[in-house]
Amino acid sequence: MKKAVFYHAGCPVCVEAEQSVARAIDGGEYEVEYVHLGESRDRIADAEKDGVQSVPAIVMEGQPFHINFGASMSDVKG
Amino acid sequence: MKKAVFYHAGCPVCVEAEQSVARAIDGGEYEVEYVHLGESRDRIADAEKDGVQSVPAIVMEGQPFHINFGASMSDVKG
Repeated sequence: MKKAVFYHAGCPVCVEAEQSVARAIDGGEYEVEYVHLGESRDRIADAEKDGVQSVPAIVMEGQPFHINFGASMSDVKG
Repeated sequence: MKKAVFYHAGCPVCVEAEQSVARAIDGGEYEVEYVHLGESRDRIADAEKDGVQSVPAIVMEGQPFHINFGASMSDVKG
């Protein structure tokens, strides 16, 4: 099973991306984890290590894909 | 079957997004069409109508999601 992590911060742009893109990912091929960086602040370092610069973003097998723009990581870290 | 259209221009960022994100979409739920706007220039108007501002982007049921940044639509229109 391949691994994907969807990072978000509960923002409207994040919710749209989660409902349309992240939820459309084939669950038979990928295990998708959903991480709210505002609530799981200990995961901010993981996101940054994977190159996440803004949310919403999905990291697929270690590669970051930013989807539209909700908030920068500096806003999330605020 | 829901409809998704992946718009790209053959750029390296586009290829990455196609191989990771677009190809991961559940084919049982979505019919995904792949459109190269450099080759199918008659589709540029469709992309713009759906709010695509840069490629790669995927339009899911009419809603645009820009994935990272490869080229702006003005670059594509050149």
